[in-house]
Amino acid sequence: MAVPFAWRDGKDIGVYLMNKAIYEYAHGGDVYDEAGRPNGELLDFSSNINPLGMPQNALNAAKQSLEQSNIYPDSGCRRLIAALAAYENVEPCHLFCSNGASDIIFRIVSARKPGKILVTAPSFADYERAGRGFGAEVVYYPLQQENGFSIDSHIIGAIRTALPGIVFLCNPNNPTGRLIHFELLTEVAAACTEINSILVIDECFLDFVPDADKYTAKPLLSTYKNVAVLKAFTKIFAMPGLRLGYAICNNEAFLDRLRLCGADWPVSNVAQAAGIAALENGPEYISKSISYIAIERNRITDALAGMGLALYPAYANYIFFHCSWDMDLSRELRKKGILIRDCADFAGLEPGYYRIAVLTQEKNTRLIKSLEEVRKSWQSRL
Amino acid sequence: MAVPFAWRDGKDIGVYLMNKAIYEYAHGGDVYDEAGRPNGELLDFSSNINPLGMPQNALNAAKQSLEQSNIYPDSGCRRLIAALAAYENVEPCHLFCSNGASDIIFRIVSARKPGKILVTAPSFADYERAGRGFGAEVVYYPLQQENGFSIDSHIIGAIRTALPGIVFLCNPNNPTGRLIHFELLTEVAAACTEINSILVIDECFLDFVPDADKYTAKPLLSTYKNVAVLKAFTKIFAMPGLRLGYAICNNEAFLDRLRLCGADWPVSNVAQAAGIAALENGPEYISKSISYIAIERNRITDALAGMGLALYPAYANYIFFHCSWDMDLSRELRKKGILIRDCADFAGLEPGYYRIAVLTQEKNTRLIKSLEEVRKSWQSRL
Repeated sequence: MAVPFAWRDGKDIGVYLMNKAIYEYAHGGDVYDEAGRPNGELLDFSSNINPLGMPQNALNAAKQSLEQSNIYPDSGCRRLIAALAAYENVEPCHLFCSNGASDIIFRIVSARKPGKILVTAPSFADYERAGRGFGAEVVYYPLQQENGFSIDSHIIGAIRTALPGIVFLCNPNNPTGRLIHFELLTEVAAACTEINSILVIDECFLDFVPDADKYTAKPLLSTYKNVAVLKAFTKIFAMPGLRLGYAICNNEAFLDRLRLCGADWPVSNVAQAAGIAALENGPEYISKSISYIAIERNRITDALAGMGLALYPAYANYIFFHCSWDMDLSRELRKKGILIRDCADFAGLEPGYYRIAVLTQEKNTRLIKSLEEVRKSWQSRL
Repeated sequence: MAVPFAWRDGKDIGVYLMNKAIYEYAHGGDVYDEAGRPNGELLDFSSNINPLGMPQNALNAAKQSLEQSNIYPDSGCRRLIAALAAYENVEPCHLFCSNGASDIIFRIVSARKPGKILVTAPSFADYERAGRGFGAEVVYYPLQQENGFSIDSHIIGAIRTALPGIVFLCNPNNPTGRLIHFELLTEVAAACTEINSILVIDECFLDFVPDADKYTAKPLLSTYKNVAVLKAFTKIFAMPGLRLGYAICNNEAFLDRLRLCGADWPVSNVAQAAGIAALENGPEYISKSISYIAIERNRITDALAGMGLALYPAYANYIFFHCSWDMDLSRELRKKGILIRDCADFAGLEPGYYRIAVLTQEKNTRLIKSLEEVRKSWQSRL
């Protein structure tokens, strides 16, 4: 493979790596230029991070913890797990913390070594990535545009037919935003138990939903030992840069397997310190965030609907929509310094679907204005 | 499993987790009390961290980077890899960075999925942990006390007989400190190539060795595509708390597999920023560290030899020795607030072997003094 001309000074390394197979799986949030420098001018609506930012006390705690960078992290995350147990109202022995929820997805696959996994299409790409990384066949349960990509009870039949080792569900689903009702989750958990399958329910965005309590799978955990709930500090506490996620599961033997299927110090000192601090005022911070996001989300959906975009119901901090304008919307917005998530690379989605985060008032206003400009330029060409 | 009485306030959670299977594999550096609070009074000779501490500019860079915790890390670590490529004098496409060298060990095993791995006994426990985590059989190549635990050419025969999917060597070996000669490494690389085995050479401590250039396996990489060298910022730049390690390998397809066998954002913003800064004055810092450690290492070995302890040659920042005093040396020192690495749990070692780090002059003096006290109390009982 040819080495780019200027790799020594770093100029071409971005292009170089971007050409590699790994980037077939795109994610939002790549705000870096070709040399790996973050572009501060770019408005990033492509990753769904709490617009209120990282809580100040978490940032302070992270800063303070840096003085202890010369000691190994607590491998068992004991203080963090004690805080999380109280916060989530679960037992500490039912928690496992790692380097982001995505790391836990990989550990789960590697712990189970399934022949098959079942995922909805579309959904977050890492379930599939992890499955394929460990050689599993990926069975898609296709969500239908006709019923708004909602996940319905037909999935039970699909699970019983495919007999996957792991079923991954995302609630609310990424990128569609659709919620799965608790009754259906219960049925899926029961079906997975019957066929000895692990059910992973990714609730990384559920804390953004006002009535999260109605939807969380946590009440299922005491009955179904094969169910794991995934959560992260990444989105709700706006700290993707620090890497901190966790699993809740009432199966201690399985959590032990997760610990053994990866390195012993997955969570840095910094992430542990920031996580503990973030939980201190967690409920207040989340409720403030939900209120702020609700107002802004309504403002954006209102504006987008007014432009004739096809919106799907949004309950969390992101909005999924379809745009039938004859153009590459994400490229047009990129020219205006705005990054949105083109969902064309999600399995199960045609081109034309996009996901945007709800950010701060000022940024959202810029997004709406830019979208309006793009629409006008499209209309003028008609 | 019973839940400890006081888990809600965190008091018992340490004990609780410590009883779990995961802690069968001990590491040094656990300076935390039962509630997960680091004990600042404890002198930690059990983990081998550069006594000069984290370079100040790396600490500053880490602090500054925290302001960007609300953006995702650069998944490709582009700036860090550009800096590392120049620093290591390798091509950027031959580098992969992750959440500590231990994370890379797990990725390598999961990418190869070997039926068997071969490790020396004793050696760093994570090779074995990773192998077992993925269901591999662990074949030990026992190092002999009679020849000072040196790794000799008989290992070639062992490899040809066992036909392992992966061979792990640690150079200098942890905990014994013995170096593997380049000629032997070359033979092992050739043998591994013949049997289509991956050879992983862990050089996490090699930067502490003054003539590291004579020992590093890096010159083998262009010939042997099945060889990977592991390194870390953890020990030499004293930042275990931040989690940053890397692999060098001339097999780009294999590095792609490592990327796919784990999450997409393994390295936090903080670790990337600190790593880039640490490399700026890397060579000067390392040479200063080597000089400091050499003086202190000699002082410690002199004192220990004077107490009749059986020392093995030490070239890096730690010292391996045998103590035939009739006592639990690590427990006696623990009473004096000093943590050393009891090596009894290393495969291939009997009780009586210990490993200590070379720390700052003041701390080393305290260690020597405490050892002397322990020896006197032992002698007085004779």
